[in-house]
Amino acid sequence: MTKVLNQLTARLLDSYAEIGAINHIDGVNLPDQQTVANLTRQLLQLLFPGYFQQLTVSDGGLAGKISAALDDIAAQLRPEIQKSLDYAPPADADVDRLDTAAQTLTCEFLGRLPRVREILVTDVEAAYDGDPAATGLDEIILAYPGLEAIAVQRLAHELQKLKIALIPRMMTEWAHSRTGIDIHPGAEIGAHFFIDHGTGVVIGETTSIGNRVKIYHGVTLGAKSTSGGQELRGTKRHPTIEDDVTIYPGATILGGRTVIGAGSTVGGNVFLLNSVPPHSLVYYEEGAVLVKGKSPAMMEFEQGGGI
Amino acid sequence: MTKVLNQLTARLLDSYAEIGAINHIDGVNLPDQQTVANLTRQLLQLLFPGYFQQLTVSDGGLAGKISAALDDIAAQLRPEIQKSLDYAPPADADVDRLDTAAQTLTCEFLGRLPRVREILVTDVEAAYDGDPAATGLDEIILAYPGLEAIAVQRLAHELQKLKIALIPRMMTEWAHSRTGIDIHPGAEIGAHFFIDHGTGVVIGETTSIGNRVKIYHGVTLGAKSTSGGQELRGTKRHPTIEDDVTIYPGATILGGRTVIGAGSTVGGNVFLLNSVPPHSLVYYEEGAVLVKGKSPAMMEFEQGGGI
Amino acid sequence: MTKVLNQLTARLLDSYAEIGAINHIDGVNLPDQQTVANLTRQLLQLLFPGYFQQLTVSDGGLAGKISAALDDIAAQLRPEIQKSLDYAPPADADVDRLDTAAQTLTCEFLGRLPRVREILVTDVEAAYDGDPAATGLDEIILAYPGLEAIAVQRLAHELQKLKIALIPRMMTEWAHSRTGIDIHPGAEIGAHFFIDHGTGVVIGETTSIGNRVKIYHGVTLGAKSTSGGQELRGTKRHPTIEDDVTIYPGATILGGRTVIGAGSTVGGNVFLLNSVPPHSLVYYEEGAVLVKGKSPAMMEFEQGGGI
Repeated sequence: MTKVLNQLTARLLDSYAEIGAINHIDGVNLPDQQTVANLTRQLLQLLFPGYFQQLTVSDGGLAGKISAALDDIAAQLRPEIQKSLDYAPPADADVDRLDTAAQTLTCEFLGRLPRVREILVTDVEAAYDGDPAATGLDEIILAYPGLEAIAVQRLAHELQKLKIALIPRMMTEWAHSRTGIDIHPGAEIGAHFFIDHGTGVVIGETTSIGNRVKIYHGVTLGAKSTSGGQELRGTKRHPTIEDDVTIYPGATILGGRTVIGAGSTVGGNVFLLNSVPPHSLVYYEEGAVLVKGKSPAMMEFEQGGGI
Repeated sequence: MTKVLNQLTARLLDSYAEIGAINHIDGVNLPDQQTVANLTRQLLQLLFPGYFQQLTVSDGGLAGKISAALDDIAAQLRPEIQKSLDYAPPADADVDRLDTAAQTLTCEFLGRLPRVREILVTDVEAAYDGDPAATGLDEIILAYPGLEAIAVQRLAHELQKLKIALIPRMMTEWAHSRTGIDIHPGAEIGAHFFIDHGTGVVIGETTSIGNRVKIYHGVTLGAKSTSGGQELRGTKRHPTIEDDVTIYPGATILGGRTVIGAGSTVGGNVFLLNSVPPHSLVYYEEGAVLVKGKSPAMMEFEQGGGI
Repeated sequence: MTKVLNQLTARLLDSYAEIGAINHIDGVNLPDQQTVANLTRQLLQLLFPGYFQQLTVSDGGLAGKISAALDDIAAQLRPEIQKSLDYAPPADADVDRLDTAAQTLTCEFLGRLPRVREILVTDVEAAYDGDPAATGLDEIILAYPGLEAIAVQRLAHELQKLKIALIPRMMTEWAHSRTGIDIHPGAEIGAHFFIDHGTGVVIGETTSIGNRVKIYHGVTLGAKSTSGGQELRGTKRHPTIEDDVTIYPGATILGGRTVIGAGSTVGGNVFLLNSVPPHSLVYYEEGAVLVKGKSPAMMEFEQGGGI
């Protein structure tokens, strides 16, 4: 077996040398998936102190613990941001001083946490107001995947605005893996945002969402066509959802010029490529579904369980 | 950097004091996410002994191992239940004796495990009978997310019936994160239940499901509208699915008065707000889909890959 | 409490003895979920060297590290394959020499890794070409769930072709749990395959997919009906997708005789049970969606937020 494995080592090395596209053995270091995941967890704990065992605060000494947590986060985040800057230096950066830039950006990002908390409070309230099954605010923070997804996106969005590469998407994909909710870090999302259930939600990079919007699982806010590929990068490809809109499960709304007017309701499974004015109701006619009785032969077939 | 972080610590402490809704620094301790996740894993191992390395039984001494596993689970579960009772004491509880109540409820819950096993056996059989891709019962237990989701819901449902707050939903959301299947702990589900593939399934709090029901990924059994918010709490908002019903992928069935009669089949993507009688077939007319050839210009455009 | 737990131990032991279907206390050992998950992670690191901290290569010594990683994988994989062979010996195997067979199959599988890498390179390229939001190949490897899902399926598919039981499905279900993408190890998938977003995708066991196919989240390539249950095992139940097909979110294509001709585009939410010729456009007429203004009474009701 040793001989076979030695040969395979040589073949893999050849493969790495020949096909460089999917390895990164000579380039700069890239941000590390596991570190980014851990940082995201720790940031969530800072936003919701006391909810997680890792930051028990009931025995006092809160200031010391928060300070220690912040130091730890900064110590881990700064090198990841540095790697991101080395990989994709900002257009206006002095490439000889990227270490200073990494420190400045780390502080700038962490300094925005209180503001992120302010808006997340409105999201928790929106979840409570919007879901009759919610028994209280605590349950939402402890168990609602929609809250976790929007909390991570709001964090990632701040990094994205600071033009830091790779890390924002790694953060939102960590949340996507845990929640089934895929919100691009670029999306602009207003206050009081509530995603119920959440699995299958996709919100594209150039989506704009107003205040007090509520969406259900399986909703797509996407692009009309991507056959233009990379030539479409940077264009507004995803819809605009104005204030006070509700979008029921499985609805698909596509296109950068598509605007859902304020106060509208979009029904389940609706497929929409065009704008609708404020206070619209959008839905399918019910008549399309056919209901008929099964024939005796079909019922017998099913009981037999075979063909 | 130290100075900036010190200032940020002060600002975060202010933020915690001002906006209390999403922290829990002075209140009672809440059940811990990680502990609840670990307990759920250990309970699954007790239900399916020998399937997981953590409880290897092939070398004998089964009784001693099961006994030790139970002791370990009870020792962890009891304090979590106590925290839940402190947080939301049952209406009829003596608040000075919640520690005794926690012990009683822990024993009562664990005592129901054999009954939960009995019904899970029927779920495994249903998966084998219902999926031609299944190669045996073992594969279903080792790899089918639908089985994991229903096993966790059946456990959480017992805790819910004992009126224990927070923990049941934390358990089902742990399963939701792993499987993409969101079944509320309150749902009543009969024997021989099979969810195939599963991602995107949502089954609401007041759903009732009969025996031998089979549903596919993306199926929603939900509420018609939640614009009533918290005023709707406790009402029957989700559908009733009678015995021997099959619901194909992506179907959405909404409303507390909606009853799907026994023996019915609901087709893929159907959106249904009304009851159907027993032995119904519910589906969309095929004619609605349009098929036409692409124009030469469109084919050329796509080959060019641009706009 | 001790007495109650002792009684419960006895009841659980009785339950295991009576209801054997969901335990495995006297049989052969089965492949271990956790080990299979770890192996899958390590194999991904070999395919994408340098991307993950666990295999840092920037400090040279690559050959030694790859060799050590391969040794480690082989040492863990061989006993899992042996357990799989003990559980389900191949028809032509000498049951007294399954340990030799396990070694041979381990080497054969690992020897295919360079070829798997060759095809995965085309998948990374397809993702970059197909998604305007992608900023580079690195982001795709670090963060795109669709790439992780297809990488794991291509690995599992090789084990499936070697007729190894259980492990392939355990691998794809590990990826399913992380990505929401459920691709059966049996599916045959061509080069340049791209799944965007991915959550809710289901690709059945007997699906055939050509080259340069692009599918979005929520797409099902499934069976028409499974009421035949186990009698359908081994038949072609899932569709054939020819080269250069794009399938938009939420489309459902069912049936073993259903062929989507080369170069076709299938629109979002389309439900299709029949073949379409090459270069088809398949979509729903837009007229089916109704848009109307909300009545003043409804708007007042919503502002009040209750019934």
